[in-house]
Amino acid sequence: MEILTLEQAAKLLAEKNNILVLMHKSPDGDAIGSAYGLCKALQSLGKNAVPLCGDEIPRDYSYITESFSFQEFEPEFIVSVDLASTSLLSGKAAEYAEKIDLCIDHHGSNTGYASFGFVDGKSASCAEIIKDILELMKVKFTREIANAVFTGICTDTGCFKYSSVTPRTHRIAADLIEYGAESGMICRLMFDSKSRSRLAMEKMVLDTLKYDADGAIAFVCLTLDIMQRSGALPGDTEGVASIPRQIEGVKIGVTLKEKENGECRFSVRTSDDIDASEICKKFGGGGHHAAAGCSIYGEIAEAKEKMLAACREALEEKI
Amino acid sequence: MEILTLEQAAKLLAEKNNILVLMHKSPDGDAIGSAYGLCKALQSLGKNAVPLCGDEIPRDYSYITESFSFQEFEPEFIVSVDLASTSLLSGKAAEYAEKIDLCIDHHGSNTGYASFGFVDGKSASCAEIIKDILELMKVKFTREIANAVFTGICTDTGCFKYSSVTPRTHRIAADLIEYGAESGMICRLMFDSKSRSRLAMEKMVLDTLKYDADGAIAFVCLTLDIMQRSGALPGDTEGVASIPRQIEGVKIGVTLKEKENGECRFSVRTSDDIDASEICKKFGGGGHHAAAGCSIYGEIAEAKEKMLAACREALEEKI
Repeated sequence: MEILTLEQAAKLLAEKNNILVLMHKSPDGDAIGSAYGLCKALQSLGKNAVPLCGDEIPRDYSYITESFSFQEFEPEFIVSVDLASTSLLSGKAAEYAEKIDLCIDHHGSNTGYASFGFVDGKSASCAEIIKDILELMKVKFTREIANAVFTGICTDTGCFKYSSVTPRTHRIAADLIEYGAESGMICRLMFDSKSRSRLAMEKMVLDTLKYDADGAIAFVCLTLDIMQRSGALPGDTEGVASIPRQIEGVKIGVTLKEKENGECRFSVRTSDDIDASEICKKFGGGGHHAAAGCSIYGEIAEAKEKMLAACREALEEKI
Repeated sequence: MEILTLEQAAKLLAEKNNILVLMHKSPDGDAIGSAYGLCKALQSLGKNAVPLCGDEIPRDYSYITESFSFQEFEPEFIVSVDLASTSLLSGKAAEYAEKIDLCIDHHGSNTGYASFGFVDGKSASCAEIIKDILELMKVKFTREIANAVFTGICTDTGCFKYSSVTPRTHRIAADLIEYGAESGMICRLMFDSKSRSRLAMEKMVLDTLKYDADGAIAFVCLTLDIMQRSGALPGDTEGVASIPRQIEGVKIGVTLKEKENGECRFSVRTSDDIDASEICKKFGGGGHHAAAGCSIYGEIAEAKEKMLAACREALEEKI
C-alpha cells in the first residue's frame, strides 16, 4: 500500500468519479458516519458515490441513511473507511476485498490491503480524517454531512469520553456543530436511549457477569438464547461490550457474543496499562490498545476458558 | 446586582485578595471544578483564595481536592460560582449569603443576590465562564487547574451529550486538554465507572420496571430493601432517575425512592413536550421542565398510584 499524505488522498478523491465506499461488517457509528458522510460530500461535488456494507445498517442510524440518495453506476474507484483489514468485509462488500484503491483509516493495525492509503492511528475516529479530507476538498458542509461525520466522532469516542480524544477531536466537533450537526439529538439517540428489547437484553447479559483474577477481569456472555428471549436486534448489541469494563476494579472487560456458525466473537476492553489488541492478536484478531476483538470457534465454555487464560497472562505480565 | 462584562469581572478579581469562593450544597462537578479551578488559579497569581462548601465534597473528586493547599486568612472578597440562588447555600457557606461580592454563574434563573455579577445562561457550564475569565487574567493553566475546569464542563454537559453544548464548549475542552487536562481519566471516573454494589442495585431496580399508559410511562422503584441487599451507598443512586426515561417510547420516567420515615421520594423525567415540574407541583414539589421531584408520604403502592394518576393526566392533556 502506497502511503499518501492527507492532501494527496484528497486530491486523488477529487480526481475520481463513480466511487464505492466500503464499510466493515457489523457497522458501527464511525463506519456509517464516515462512509455516508464521505458519499454525501462527494455527491455534493457532483460525483456518483454510494456506501456499501455487507450487513444491514442498524435502524438507530436512520437519521443518516434516510436522506441518502442511492445512485446506480458501475464502480470505478473503491474506497474503504474505518476498515483495519479486508477480513472484516462481509457479503457484497467482501467481493471488492482485492480491489480497494484507497483506504482511509485510523487503525494503527491496518494491514495495508489497498493500492493507496491514509492511516492515522492517532485519530480517535476515522470520521475525523474524513472531516479533514472534506475540508481540503472544499466541501460545503450541509447539516446532513455534518450529522454523519459528527456521529462517527461521538460514537467512536464513547461521546468524547475515551483517552483517544485529542484537542483536535473537540475542535472538529465544534466545527461540525457550527456546520449544523445536531449534537444533542445525536448524542441522546446514541448514548441516552434504549429500546425495550435492548434493556431486557442488557439485564440478561448482566445475569451472566462473572469475575476472575480477583475482580480484575469481568466477563459477560451474550448468547443466541439471550438475543432470542429478549427480542434484541443486532444493532442493539453495540455498547454491550463496554459494560464489564465499567465496573470498579476491572482492568479487562470481556464480552463473548455467540454467533450462529459456532463462532464465539470476543470484545475485549482494557484499562490504560493493558493492551487489548495484544490479547486479541493471539486469536487472530486485533484492534486498538483499549478496545479489540477476535473470534474463537468452538464451544462457548472452551472459548471462554482460552480467552480468560490469555487475559490472566496479560495481567500477570503487568505485575 | 450590577451586571459586569467578562472583562470587568476579570479585572475585579485581579484587583482583590483574600478571596473566598462559595459552592452550593450537594456540590456537583461544575460547582467543584469551577470553585477549585478558580482558587487554584488565583493562588497561582500569588493571591490567597479558598473554596467553601457547606457539604462534603464527594470522594470521586479527590483528584481535584487532594492537591489543593488550604490557606488561613480573613476573607475580604466573597465570590459565588454556579450558584443560582443563596437558598442553595448550606452550613458555613450559608453564613456568607448576604455578603457575596461577585457572582459568576450560568443559570438564567439567577436571582441576582450579589453586588456584582456575570451570568451567562447560554454557557453549558459555569466552568466555561471560569476558563474565559482565567484567560483574561493571563493565568498560566497548570494540569491541576485544567483538570478542575474540565471536570466542570464535562459533568454539567453529561460528557458533551446535552443540547446545551455549543462549539465554544468543545473548543474550551480542546484548550484544556492542551493545557494538560486528563480528559480520559476524568470522563472515565465521572461517567464510565460503577461500583459492584451500584451495578447490583441497578439490576435490582430494573427488575421493578413497569410500563403504564401503553409504554409512555415507565416506573421503577428503589426500595430500602434494594439498598440493603445491593450494599449500595447513597452516592450510588445518582443517575438511577435517568434510567426509565432512556427507554424508547417513554415520555415520562418515574423513579420512586423509598425513604426511612415513610417518605416516597419521586424523581420525574419527561421528554420535551411534557412538563415534569407541573406533575411534581401537584404534590408540593418542583424543578425543571424535563426533570423534577416531589415527596408523597404513605404506603409505596398508594403513593405510586397517586403519581401514576398524575402522570396519566399530564399525558392526556397532551393528546
